[in-house]
Amino acid sequence: MTKPATPLLDRINSPSDLKEIPDTDLPQLADELRADLVYSVSQSGGHLGSNLGVVELTVALHHVFDTPHDRILWDVGHQCYPHKMLTGRRSQMATIRKEDGLSGFTKRSESEFDPFGAAHSSTSISAGLGMVEAARLQGKHRNVVSVIGDGSMSAGMAYEAMNNAGAIDAQQIVILNDNDMSIAPPTGAMSAYLARLVSGKTYISLRESAKQLSKRLPKFFQDKARKTEEYARAFWSGGTLFEEMGFFYVGPIDGHNLEHLLPVLRNARDAKVGPILIHVVTQKGKGYAPAEAASDKYHGVSKFDVVTGAQAKAKPNAPSYTKVFGQSLAQEGTFDDRIVAISAAMPGGTGVDIFEQIHPDRTYDVGIAEQHAVTFAAGMAADGMKPFCAIYSTFLQRAYDQVVHDCAIQNLPVRFPIDRAGFVGADGSTHAGSFDVAYLSCIPNMVVMAAGDEAELKHMVRTAAEYDEGPMAFRYPRGEGVGVDMPDRGEVLQIGKGRIMREGSKVAIVSLGARLKEALLAAEDLETYGLSTTVADARFAKPIDEDLIENLARNHELIITVEEGSIGGFGSHVAQLLSSRGYLDGSVRFRSMFMPDRFFEQASPERLYELAGLDAANIVKTVFAALGRDKVDVPNIRA
Amino acid sequence: MTKPATPLLDRINSPSDLKEIPDTDLPQLADELRADLVYSVSQSGGHLGSNLGVVELTVALHHVFDTPHDRILWDVGHQCYPHKMLTGRRSQMATIRKEDGLSGFTKRSESEFDPFGAAHSSTSISAGLGMVEAARLQGKHRNVVSVIGDGSMSAGMAYEAMNNAGAIDAQQIVILNDNDMSIAPPTGAMSAYLARLVSGKTYISLRESAKQLSKRLPKFFQDKARKTEEYARAFWSGGTLFEEMGFFYVGPIDGHNLEHLLPVLRNARDAKVGPILIHVVTQKGKGYAPAEAASDKYHGVSKFDVVTGAQAKAKPNAPSYTKVFGQSLAQEGTFDDRIVAISAAMPGGTGVDIFEQIHPDRTYDVGIAEQHAVTFAAGMAADGMKPFCAIYSTFLQRAYDQVVHDCAIQNLPVRFPIDRAGFVGADGSTHAGSFDVAYLSCIPNMVVMAAGDEAELKHMVRTAAEYDEGPMAFRYPRGEGVGVDMPDRGEVLQIGKGRIMREGSKVAIVSLGARLKEALLAAEDLETYGLSTTVADARFAKPIDEDLIENLARNHELIITVEEGSIGGFGSHVAQLLSSRGYLDGSVRFRSMFMPDRFFEQASPERLYELAGLDAANIVKTVFAALGRDKVDVPNIRA
Repeated sequence: MTKPATPLLDRINSPSDLKEIPDTDLPQLADELRADLVYSVSQSGGHLGSNLGVVELTVALHHVFDTPHDRILWDVGHQCYPHKMLTGRRSQMATIRKEDGLSGFTKRSESEFDPFGAAHSSTSISAGLGMVEAARLQGKHRNVVSVIGDGSMSAGMAYEAMNNAGAIDAQQIVILNDNDMSIAPPTGAMSAYLARLVSGKTYISLRESAKQLSKRLPKFFQDKARKTEEYARAFWSGGTLFEEMGFFYVGPIDGHNLEHLLPVLRNARDAKVGPILIHVVTQKGKGYAPAEAASDKYHGVSKFDVVTGAQAKAKPNAPSYTKVFGQSLAQEGTFDDRIVAISAAMPGGTGVDIFEQIHPDRTYDVGIAEQHAVTFAAGMAADGMKPFCAIYSTFLQRAYDQVVHDCAIQNLPVRFPIDRAGFVGADGSTHAGSFDVAYLSCIPNMVVMAAGDEAELKHMVRTAAEYDEGPMAFRYPRGEGVGVDMPDRGEVLQIGKGRIMREGSKVAIVSLGARLKEALLAAEDLETYGLSTTVADARFAKPIDEDLIENLARNHELIITVEEGSIGGFGSHVAQLLSSRGYLDGSVRFRSMFMPDRFFEQASPERLYELAGLDAANIVKTVFAALGRDKVDVPNIRA
Repeated sequence: MTKPATPLLDRINSPSDLKEIPDTDLPQLADELRADLVYSVSQSGGHLGSNLGVVELTVALHHVFDTPHDRILWDVGHQCYPHKMLTGRRSQMATIRKEDGLSGFTKRSESEFDPFGAAHSSTSISAGLGMVEAARLQGKHRNVVSVIGDGSMSAGMAYEAMNNAGAIDAQQIVILNDNDMSIAPPTGAMSAYLARLVSGKTYISLRESAKQLSKRLPKFFQDKARKTEEYARAFWSGGTLFEEMGFFYVGPIDGHNLEHLLPVLRNARDAKVGPILIHVVTQKGKGYAPAEAASDKYHGVSKFDVVTGAQAKAKPNAPSYTKVFGQSLAQEGTFDDRIVAISAAMPGGTGVDIFEQIHPDRTYDVGIAEQHAVTFAAGMAADGMKPFCAIYSTFLQRAYDQVVHDCAIQNLPVRFPIDRAGFVGADGSTHAGSFDVAYLSCIPNMVVMAAGDEAELKHMVRTAAEYDEGPMAFRYPRGEGVGVDMPDRGEVLQIGKGRIMREGSKVAIVSLGARLKEALLAAEDLETYGLSTTVADARFAKPIDEDLIENLARNHELIITVEEGSIGGFGSHVAQLLSSRGYLDGSVRFRSMFMPDRFFEQASPERLYELAGLDAANIVKTVFAALGRDKVDVPNIRA
């Protein structure tokens, strides 16, 4: 497929050029933008469906608002491709989500048109409100528009922000982009509510929207009449819930119809009526038939053939950790009907959908609501169930207090399968699973495991199903396993016990997690230099296998820990153990390898581990440096 | 004052006794319970106002529901005193919030009548929903009632839970206890909404509540008529917002009128209509004149005189850290009008109210909404303000992802003043500030400080006001300072530099935070044993003062770190630094003192530090043990 012709689009180098285009030509511009977007993503891969849904909205926003002075905040940010294309980054779209390329999300360091970076959901109303108040305090006039999907509205922080915006009566515009799905199909009462607002109603016309806005204006001198009027209007407009939160509700609007979008946005821009919520209905995948027809609307795609829609998918060498988890949990679920699976809007991403196929009655998707997911699980555990609350490492940060307060303090057996531990690749720094070992292992009562390979993950699922004495987390990386033989069923691991992978006498490498294969490679290398090397798989970050560590300390000259996580995690705990027991008073040397103290942008996981110094070559270098050998050049990997 | 006569109450040893009391005698029982509660708290101190508000509700709940089989979950749990008194713990009320005594909150380990512990807010709907589903999956019939205050409704997790409950159509009862304040006066649109529901309306009668419930029943065969009917009912009942979330709304009900409460609760118990929200209006401090008259309704009180209401307040020896923070920030705010203060429903507890008195326009109380508070602050920082987002250590756990994703990854200069670092005393394990150094110091771009005394805190406020390059946290303990001289204005500290407090040559104690005075006491002791001791105040957990640490390592036999926090924090980072640079290969010994790996129940902070082995005596013991000296008995303090 050749690049589509885009004569109008080619004239747009920044939003100021867009302002020169008359309203009547904007539909053609939107068509060109859509065609160019499809072509671009077919070459690069990336998010597609969500971007196709907001083409007209993006054109309308940049036409009506004065960016970058006005602020447009794209919630999550995976729908920002048209925005990037209109704000000077079109020529770089081929680099999106690649090393040194454009981010797949909005990013402050990338463009002045990205006033607030994102990737995790539901932050845009809070950040937007902060900007509204910053402008007010500085005496600046500035419009702030937060564009948030209906899926992101299930998260509590969106509600917290609206609750505050409504009370402050801030001049904030929220555009609710209602495409009836985030990544998975919609869940939750809010979603049902939005569906009721839209169902059986025609989109409001220009005149109606103007009327809605003008009705709001007299409120300042008609406060007594307000309540009655509000209910009357609510009955008509159906937006009572948002009205009750203090927002002026406009909608629903056809988000693909520029004739409707433009006047409503202009009205909202010029009205000074407190917070406004514009309910825009769009179609994920709009305008590209294969995306419209796909169940996930081409949420995230590989390179694909534009004509057929066929995606290029690499053949995996081994099953993914996600799939191993899902299948193992589904299997355990057949043996134990107390097992329950909980997902926060990621049933596919976490493998919970595999469990759901066999045990639908014991599967819960609570929406983007990690805080609730964890305490909901804690309630279940308190009454005898065995909940597996499957949340990515980075998203579990959203529920940290619930892990501490509701699970650990009460010692309730909630299981946390933690996918996406370590570097994740194209999603970059916002999605890396860097901190979970540190932030979980400091909590009393927690048990924290990390899988050295995919068979280990299967054992850990079984172990978690059997262990019913307190909260337990087990982490595993994104992507494929290493291809080890898989048991028919997982074994029950002994809590707090690691395993020796190979025995040596001089150097001991203790790996936590899936860097294990690199540790084994490094050991082979070290043997060729005459350094007899033990490799242990710690399995447990908490409780640490103290016997194992002490034995290694007694019988080796050097202990090195390796983990795919930040400082403060496994290696730091081992350092504390060894120093408290006097082993570091001269009897053994100790080094710890972990993620360096910086955020890493997107690149392949292998490349990121190389940059982070967490591969076999760097393990070897660290060993040599620690032993004072100078045959090998040793760069300062922690710089 | 003598103990009031309580003939009816004396017959109640458990809720089963309560069931024998006829409805008509329950008001007298409530009166006796209230009098006994006032007497009890006057002797022990503790929470009072919130408990006075729920006396009738507690009596009614235990009369109508079959506890402990049925579950009653008290959100936050500080209003559980009447509940404890009716569930077999009345004789122990004098021990409440004291060492080895009753918890001030609900606690699973304390009673089978406490099905879910609490202390942080807004968890009860999530946990209750988990229990509803656990019962359903196990084929048990069980009523689950979550009692949540209006203040707790501002937290996102309450919304997340309702969003899920409404979608599941769970048989859950939520009692919204609307007393128009949590700890501080109410904020937020939800609060305004509730006020509108209540204002100008009479409480619904028994007949009306029955009618409301029976109206709901036909919905299963009248789904098509439902929408219209719902709006009609909403107009009458005013509970549309909750109806839209999928809840059946009943109310408002006078929460002090048992004749109204009992039939409504019985109806709710017997109706199978999906989730029900009962809107109960109560008065915080109800029935005790001094509490009703006080602005905080006697939220938390010391021992007091029942007749006059006068509280016994100990005279402080030094200003509290909270006050020093508030005054210092207010002072800096006069020099820099970009400084903004943000509180999440704790303006008084954090000292933000002191800033507010001088800078009301730059003060924000966002309600119990820590996630929003942090990202709201990040939005402000992105547009040039200097937000100080003041949240207790334990509550900042609620916003961990926002600290990582919205502040640190974008390197936005949000300041986090962290009060209640370390042990907090009577509030126990749920409120201890144990983990912040660990969970913050692993994050790239963060700067983390801890105040060694109250003058240091003043310097840190100034330093944070000046430092505008990225996120910065500074922690300080609950309670009074140590009485050092206070400067007129804080100084700007050099980032990443500690200070030497006294110089020695053999032992180096490096303190992070307010254990500094214990370190200095320990040093004096050690000198008497002939051990020349250096004491350093690290000031920074991140970035660590590497020069300082390396110098100490070069010039001492032993380095000991001391901090009022968990493993994974400052000491662990120092261990990593020392081992990576080879200092632990035999040139210096290293020991680290931090909180042991367990949760501590309530006791005085001094007692807790003694139990945790973080006082001067234990520092001395640790030094002797590390040096292999046996003159001093050294228990294993980390057991």
